[in-house]
Amino acid sequence: MLVVQKYGGTSVANAELIKHVAARVIRRIRAGDQVAVVVSAMGDTTDELIDLAFSVSPEPDPRELDMLLSTGEQMSIALLAMALRAQGQEAVGLTGHQAGIYTRAQYGSGRIARVEADRVRTELAAGRVPIVAGFQGTTEEMEIVTLGRGASDTTAVALAVALGADRCENCKDVTGVYTADPRLAPKARQLRDITYEEMLELATQGSQVMHNRAVELASVYNLPILVTSTMVDAPGTLIHGESELEERNRVRGIAHDTDVAKITVRHVPDRPGIAAHIFEPLAEAGISVDTIVQNASERDLTDLTFTLSRNDLKRAESLMPAICGAVGAPGFVADQNLGKVSIVGVGIQTAPGYAARMFRALFDAGINIELISTSEIRLTCLIGADRVGDAVRVLHDAFALEAPDRDLRD
Amino acid sequence: MLVVQKYGGTSVANAELIKHVAARVIRRIRAGDQVAVVVSAMGDTTDELIDLAFSVSPEPDPRELDMLLSTGEQMSIALLAMALRAQGQEAVGLTGHQAGIYTRAQYGSGRIARVEADRVRTELAAGRVPIVAGFQGTTEEMEIVTLGRGASDTTAVALAVALGADRCENCKDVTGVYTADPRLAPKARQLRDITYEEMLELATQGSQVMHNRAVELASVYNLPILVTSTMVDAPGTLIHGESELEERNRVRGIAHDTDVAKITVRHVPDRPGIAAHIFEPLAEAGISVDTIVQNASERDLTDLTFTLSRNDLKRAESLMPAICGAVGAPGFVADQNLGKVSIVGVGIQTAPGYAARMFRALFDAGINIELISTSEIRLTCLIGADRVGDAVRVLHDAFALEAPDRDLRD
Repeated sequence: MLVVQKYGGTSVANAELIKHVAARVIRRIRAGDQVAVVVSAMGDTTDELIDLAFSVSPEPDPRELDMLLSTGEQMSIALLAMALRAQGQEAVGLTGHQAGIYTRAQYGSGRIARVEADRVRTELAAGRVPIVAGFQGTTEEMEIVTLGRGASDTTAVALAVALGADRCENCKDVTGVYTADPRLAPKARQLRDITYEEMLELATQGSQVMHNRAVELASVYNLPILVTSTMVDAPGTLIHGESELEERNRVRGIAHDTDVAKITVRHVPDRPGIAAHIFEPLAEAGISVDTIVQNASERDLTDLTFTLSRNDLKRAESLMPAICGAVGAPGFVADQNLGKVSIVGVGIQTAPGYAARMFRALFDAGINIELISTSEIRLTCLIGADRVGDAVRVLHDAFALEAPDRDLRD
Repeated sequence: MLVVQKYGGTSVANAELIKHVAARVIRRIRAGDQVAVVVSAMGDTTDELIDLAFSVSPEPDPRELDMLLSTGEQMSIALLAMALRAQGQEAVGLTGHQAGIYTRAQYGSGRIARVEADRVRTELAAGRVPIVAGFQGTTEEMEIVTLGRGASDTTAVALAVALGADRCENCKDVTGVYTADPRLAPKARQLRDITYEEMLELATQGSQVMHNRAVELASVYNLPILVTSTMVDAPGTLIHGESELEERNRVRGIAHDTDVAKITVRHVPDRPGIAAHIFEPLAEAGISVDTIVQNASERDLTDLTFTLSRNDLKRAESLMPAICGAVGAPGFVADQNLGKVSIVGVGIQTAPGYAARMFRALFDAGINIELISTSEIRLTCLIGADRVGDAVRVLHDAFALEAPDRDLRD
């Protein structure tokens, strides 16, 4: 089988780990598989490079920041290729440019437009392991563009799709996808499998296991992703299209996010176009808004609340006075100490009682709900950032997630 | 005037220095000049990357080592471009590939085949300072190749030639070229100018000021190079084609090198072809041999001595038994604790007495000469490594190099 293995920064954080990864790749090849590898920057390299950038400029130019950050992955590919060769396996490091990862000049947040995988195919055919730099692509004009934090996962999926690989393997410092973050919920249990949609909700809602764009892309091309451990020989969790366990617990997992801020625009005159007036300036400033809720408060006036990343709050606050003026609102209030907790699972909206059970569990634990939002397969409550850990634990208990799946095939 | 400024690793070793360099470039532009910049990796980055390579492989693959090392300069160009922009000057970092520095796939020791400077010209015309990564080039197949240690100087000269620049400025942690290394000879004096040939001998003979390939290239295209200080506002030393000071002291400077080893092949049967038999295997192993001297010792037998870098001695010694066998020599002796001291100046071979004065000064200081070699403008003595400092000082005194040049134009 042809697999694309992706190793994250923690898996290649130092020379010993890089040698371990090389040995792991070689074992796989000796077992008869073809392997292409995508690798992230070592450990904290990207953060260190960002610090370096801010030490020379209060607002580093995005093109130059990408030029700088892309060196992190370039180091990793070279070192891993060397380590493979030192262990007797031909290998070749390829930058995003050399690997044909094309993107437009969206510095800092490039989207992969296409993968020209000829070079990677040639290397595979010659028996050399292609080691491709994650997180980076090239424009037609040979400019280096990074694909956003965590986007090495996306590189791996895109490459797997382009190569027609049997699957993508995301090799991490965890053994798979859990029902909740084990650091918060001691009873958290590893899942045997999960659907793209469920994984997407877990990722979007703050789970660190898989980058959401990677899951979206895999979903579109129906490419299976195995989340597995770099260090431990364990089965992992398969992310795929079908839910094989019809009678399983409908709540598959609990996602959380402690990085949430909220802005409420008060007493907005309730007329058409106010949403556009509020959100267009934010979008132009590159600020991503997450949940949006509108509550009628008084006659002809409405309160509009939205959540955003805490990092973006200061910039958003600086735009709000002009926005309030434009929509005729007297003012806004901001709160930055919020978190989110979500239950995720295909079918929770069609089955009764899940929402009630969630609200009851939070209420019993004395956790105040600030805002509720839902999707097809998710129920999210905005709560105080300091109560997120408690909320994950009580929800894990409330939905008995520690009980193993019953596999209908068994 | 259009200048290419080159900043070495010491000049950009940290954020403060990078900001200083940015300010220095901007001052120059405000004074009315056009500036393109070539920059090296920060401080000890290259050495750290080499250590990293050897931590994953006992013998890092040359292609992958170049992939790794080229990240050092890529970091510098990004940071310097950011620093310039932060100070209000548009700038753009360009990798060797983006700047059109083409080379063949001679990993670790690429030679610049051509410079396609269109992108650099476009940036200059748009009022953006092009910041080009030194030390690296690209092949036609988009492979990254480094140009050998110290080759950022060469990148700068090649770019200056391609752009038709008025001159190249090599901005360093010294204020110019000295009559000898000031750390060894306290009376060393900075030169106002020096010819390419003299500079070449100083560089080849161990002076750290300019990389010899850069001087060669500048000499071919008659491009003036100003060696000047990054930190201090001082006149510097101009390296150029003509010697303006006909009546100046013919000895321009004293070069030294403490990294010398010597191998003597004893009692070689004196017949045609022995030199080829000895030096071909060394060349194939990539070992550079410096001085070669052959002394007849006994009838029909000769002793052949050559010098090489101490780093190459161990590998050379491993090849010598086979070489001795091939030429019918009974054996060889090696000495690794040697150094070289040279006097350099146009005209020293045509003017009488310089050699005698050099040998007398060394003799008076009790320094034994192991080997003598000469060129048109150089006289070199091989001596014990521990006496190199003494030799530089006594020669500086013997040729009165502390006395200033008399400028005929004054």
